[in-house]
Amino acid sequence: MWAALAAIGKDPSTGGYHRGGWTPTERTATHWFQDQCAARNLTLESDGLGNLIAWWGPSGQPGVVTGSHLDSVIEGGAFDGPLGVVSALAAVDLLRREGFTPSVPIGVGAFVEEEGSRFGMPCLGSRVAAGVLPAEKALGLKDRSGVTLAQALEAAGTDPAGVGPSAFLDRMGTFIELHVEQGRGLTAPVGVASSIWPHGRYRFTFSGEANHAGTTLMEDRHDPMLTYAMTALAANKQARLAGARATFGRLSVEPNGTNAVPSRVTAWLDARAADDATLNSLLAAITKQATERAERDGTTLTVTPESVSPIVDFPADLRDRLVGVLNGAPVLPTGAGHDAGVFSAAGIPTAMLFVRNPTGISHSPAEYAEEDDCLAGVEALAAVLRDLAK
Amino acid sequence: MWAALAAIGKDPSTGGYHRGGWTPTERTATHWFQDQCAARNLTLESDGLGNLIAWWGPSGQPGVVTGSHLDSVIEGGAFDGPLGVVSALAAVDLLRREGFTPSVPIGVGAFVEEEGSRFGMPCLGSRVAAGVLPAEKALGLKDRSGVTLAQALEAAGTDPAGVGPSAFLDRMGTFIELHVEQGRGLTAPVGVASSIWPHGRYRFTFSGEANHAGTTLMEDRHDPMLTYAMTALAANKQARLAGARATFGRLSVEPNGTNAVPSRVTAWLDARAADDATLNSLLAAITKQATERAERDGTTLTVTPESVSPIVDFPADLRDRLVGVLNGAPVLPTGAGHDAGVFSAAGIPTAMLFVRNPTGISHSPAEYAEEDDCLAGVEALAAVLRDLAK
Repeated sequence: MWAALAAIGKDPSTGGYHRGGWTPTERTATHWFQDQCAARNLTLESDGLGNLIAWWGPSGQPGVVTGSHLDSVIEGGAFDGPLGVVSALAAVDLLRREGFTPSVPIGVGAFVEEEGSRFGMPCLGSRVAAGVLPAEKALGLKDRSGVTLAQALEAAGTDPAGVGPSAFLDRMGTFIELHVEQGRGLTAPVGVASSIWPHGRYRFTFSGEANHAGTTLMEDRHDPMLTYAMTALAANKQARLAGARATFGRLSVEPNGTNAVPSRVTAWLDARAADDATLNSLLAAITKQATERAERDGTTLTVTPESVSPIVDFPADLRDRLVGVLNGAPVLPTGAGHDAGVFSAAGIPTAMLFVRNPTGISHSPAEYAEEDDCLAGVEALAAVLRDLAK
Repeated sequence: MWAALAAIGKDPSTGGYHRGGWTPTERTATHWFQDQCAARNLTLESDGLGNLIAWWGPSGQPGVVTGSHLDSVIEGGAFDGPLGVVSALAAVDLLRREGFTPSVPIGVGAFVEEEGSRFGMPCLGSRVAAGVLPAEKALGLKDRSGVTLAQALEAAGTDPAGVGPSAFLDRMGTFIELHVEQGRGLTAPVGVASSIWPHGRYRFTFSGEANHAGTTLMEDRHDPMLTYAMTALAANKQARLAGARATFGRLSVEPNGTNAVPSRVTAWLDARAADDATLNSLLAAITKQATERAERDGTTLTVTPESVSPIVDFPADLRDRLVGVLNGAPVLPTGAGHDAGVFSAAGIPTAMLFVRNPTGISHSPAEYAEEDDCLAGVEALAAVLRDLAK
């Protein structure tokens, strides 16, 4: 399975993956998943947005769903998402080989546009499925080319009128997501999640005055690039002070000409912290420094939250049950958002398994996990499913 | 003429002009110019790249050429370029109305891609015409979509094989360019140029390591955005200290995802100073600070000069002659590059006239000159042509 997925959406020059939601590469990966489910005689169910669950075992009652996503960030790695989907299928294979008969349905899920790399909304699929994001708001989201989600769905042959909360949510009795760890916090092959840090995406719009780069005195400028530059450095410093994370990884400059002082710099802040209060004070500190600098530069700043997710504490009883099944596997929080966080916040008992990442590198072509650790992840997931569906 | 040009390439939402070389809007403006020349029975001559000179008066001998360009920066103003072309045609009209008979040819020129906003090379047309930029190097230049100049020419129906130094260069006995002033240095309606500041465009490539914005400890990052941000602030400070100009107005970020630490930031520095030594020491100071910061960030920096133009001192005898004709018009340098600088460096006796810019704003939709000052510019240009072609 890993070899088949490896080529889909891979940039041969960099080794990075490009699988934005409803792009040809992501659709190819999804079709591969559908084929895998068909080959296993799993009963494939799709909601109106294209989130998929393939069922094994008895039907018509709540069961245990496991899975992850197949889309990637821009220039992402091979493991983030696909490892959870492949491990779910492999765990089903393992349980079947040993003759296990589930007493409740086991579902293998693949949820669309988890990274938000195309429409800017992380966990888009699970948010719509869980009813957290209204269909009309989701359908109006635009990609960088101005294509709306509604248009992208139509282009993919999907009727936007069917988008809404998923009928299969009632049958997600438990949700388990296996995922590659994305930091260096896990030293054992497999661990269990305690919580997901609160996470915000904020659009910083710095506005100034376009002007000629050669003739305009430095003193006469209202250059939003300077305000932005100072804000990027301030965000880094404030995050270090708070033991948190702040990143400006996406920028748009207007008019973006070499010989023109910019009129506008739009920059997206990704900020995360161990708790909601720390996240709020981090954002406040960055905004304060940016606003003060804007006054000095004669520029203006508006800050627009694009998505803010509060802390997710996974339920302790389910977590402790997993730790018991896995003979005392380590428990750790994560700074990364996941569909598991959305489903947990929607009230579905949810847990996560992490597979060790030796370098901690993620969202990069260099993202990596050892094969032995991946196989240990499949064994662990099978053990959890065996316990929950016994 | 001004009313006819006003609509071509104008973004109705911002009022800014978009006329990149060989784009439909720039071609429309060029066709307008060709029609204007035909209506005046001027003899239109084109070189292989599409630089145009329309001749009036005797032929076969060196003459006086005046003119400017019709392309714009991205989101530019109405005056930068077109004012010089329109004023040249209007000056010819004025001289004809008064029955003036030139003793040498008078040429009205329009030179392509002066701003370099499409292919990144300022004064592309005049550099090729003057033989400063070899045809094979010019034809290989790419726009932001990867289209080469050769491909753009073919798409416009021009054979790239004809590109090279212009045959009409031998007949440019003198070149006079009228241009809107682009700073606030001119308080009279019309002035005369002393020099063009040396000007460099340098590509700064900051390379680091892509990573997950949520899970990667701040201490573990190699974030090129931070190195860039500090460099942008350093460039501003060093330019102020040197009485020079330094601008980062164009950026490209990879992968440019909200939740990814960037792997690479490419930024273009536009730097200008009153003399070559100051420009060199400005670049050295910025590069030094950037390199030191890169070491701290664990990133790397390469600096590639894309175009560097040394100072242009316009010949004093021609300049003094213009000042005499214009009854002691003020003399001032400019920080902006012009085709006049290329032709002057190529050995053609060259001068420039500036029309007052009340706000100093340029390369912006807000660029402006008073109608009375523009008319004074036409009168001044006619007086200069009358003197040089008498």
